[in-house]
Amino acid sequence: MKIIVMGGDGFIGSHIVDRLVESGHSVTVFDRCPYKVTRNLEHHRGTVKIISGEFANRAELENALRDNEVAYHCVWTSTPITSWKDPGLEIDENIRLSVQFMETASEVGIKKVVFPSSGGTVYGRQGETTVKESQLPRPFCPYGIAKLTVEHFLNYYRESKGLASDVYRIGNAFGPRQPVSSPQGVIAVWMSKIISKEKITVYGDNETLRDYVYVKDIAHLMMHSLTDLKESSTMNIGSGRGTSVMELLNIFKRVINVPFEYEILPRRPSDNAAIVLDNRAILNHFPDFSFSTMEDKVKETWLSFSKKPSHICAAS
Amino acid sequence: MKIIVMGGDGFIGSHIVDRLVESGHSVTVFDRCPYKVTRNLEHHRGTVKIISGEFANRAELENALRDNEVAYHCVWTSTPITSWKDPGLEIDENIRLSVQFMETASEVGIKKVVFPSSGGTVYGRQGETTVKESQLPRPFCPYGIAKLTVEHFLNYYRESKGLASDVYRIGNAFGPRQPVSSPQGVIAVWMSKIISKEKITVYGDNETLRDYVYVKDIAHLMMHSLTDLKESSTMNIGSGRGTSVMELLNIFKRVINVPFEYEILPRRPSDNAAIVLDNRAILNHFPDFSFSTMEDKVKETWLSFSKKPSHICAAS
Repeated sequence: MKIIVMGGDGFIGSHIVDRLVESGHSVTVFDRCPYKVTRNLEHHRGTVKIISGEFANRAELENALRDNEVAYHCVWTSTPITSWKDPGLEIDENIRLSVQFMETASEVGIKKVVFPSSGGTVYGRQGETTVKESQLPRPFCPYGIAKLTVEHFLNYYRESKGLASDVYRIGNAFGPRQPVSSPQGVIAVWMSKIISKEKITVYGDNETLRDYVYVKDIAHLMMHSLTDLKESSTMNIGSGRGTSVMELLNIFKRVINVPFEYEILPRRPSDNAAIVLDNRAILNHFPDFSFSTMEDKVKETWLSFSKKPSHICAAS
Repeated sequence: MKIIVMGGDGFIGSHIVDRLVESGHSVTVFDRCPYKVTRNLEHHRGTVKIISGEFANRAELENALRDNEVAYHCVWTSTPITSWKDPGLEIDENIRLSVQFMETASEVGIKKVVFPSSGGTVYGRQGETTVKESQLPRPFCPYGIAKLTVEHFLNYYRESKGLASDVYRIGNAFGPRQPVSSPQGVIAVWMSKIISKEKITVYGDNETLRDYVYVKDIAHLMMHSLTDLKESSTMNIGSGRGTSVMELLNIFKRVINVPFEYEILPRRPSDNAAIVLDNRAILNHFPDFSFSTMEDKVKETWLSFSKKPSHICAAS
């Protein structure tokens, strides 16, 4: 199948590329790769077609999308934290350019768009800890509002142009290649601080539960979209298990093989209290699947970080 | 209380102004009133402070909002039909400028924003006909997507800046002063066609139920927001009764005192099949309220239309 991954040189995008290549698909990546240097795709040089372009540039977008059947849309310019200070950017960049992307995709004949949405910020504050896809979203952080708005515009393009789409509401993704320059993902943030010998700041307590999910598990489950290009769905991707920030700190104490300092501060206003994703809908399609063990994967992530900090670009 | 109505010279806005003036509030209107000519507020000349300005102009907005306690936000530049062809406009104008408005309102010390949202397009396709506020919204039309996104950004400004807000998801509003130049509201569209001796186009059948609600009832119920400026809520405003398009045609046949022609066509893709709003939440606050009789109010609307078509601006 001919598949394009927008933002395919990024964290989740590059793991999707790995899975697609493994499965024998013909893969194109569209990303900002100045001077033809990729951050995460050096191992696919020669196998994957890499198009360096701006997501905002409609002509570049059109050329890149043409002749593909499926487009994974992994471009996003903010994190929950940065969006808290700049709600306008969510609209001007993330919502607006996602809609231009969908419009262009539908015009050039893309059959399906696959969109990684957010499990935590889309649901926002919920009465219960474990949330199903049918739960009423209560986003209050601009990042989550924008993700949900893009989900809704996918409905519009399905109804008006027949463009199919799958939405995956993903828990707290972690794993190798996570960027540490913008602090999304506490695991990557802590690891980068440990590497630079700074003190870790732990926002939270035993009640601040998060659903951490390993990036390779995410990429594996997102392959479900290729089984039927006419079907559309919205599904959570989470481990279904809540880990408190303090538990995570204990995992760190066990697997990080260097000493580190930490301080514990109260939760930030942009943080949810507790959220765990009900994952039965997606696991229905993968009856034999089991999630990676958190402790193992935190260790694996640490080894990849301490070998090569992912915020430093790989030279070509 | 000092209250500003953004878009107060428009259809719903001007009826809100009427109610506010009746209740003795100090009212300011912010609207585009070129050459100081208002469409709907001539009867308040001298009583209401009218500021002619552009909603997009942040400095004008700031000056207008300052010193008010409550702002009714009745500015919207599209209809469900026009939005179906131009989703980008919903983002660039309606979402973007609403967020700039909220930002400005929170900066100058507005305590509460009151927002007329949409009962039909926000809920979108639902399994049941009667919808409560707790139902999962499934918008698919850009107009409804944008209304819901603005609701979510109100959550953000409440959480981040302490700006309270009330959202009213309104059914199919009708009544005097409804604009007929852009075809939102089948009642006004039909009446304007009858006046210009054109054939009425009836999109739908006996299953296409709509919850028609008289604009003066809406304005009355929206006064609830003034009882507590610290409370925030989201409530439907609808009659709770579904009227099919064919029933409406029969009402027209009974109350319109001139002959008219019509043709019946299938539903348009941007239309919902059937939607009736559960109104128990708002009626809780108005135990003695009863909705106007539809037939009476269609007649009253017709009389006001046939006297002075509302699409012609009133001279100053």
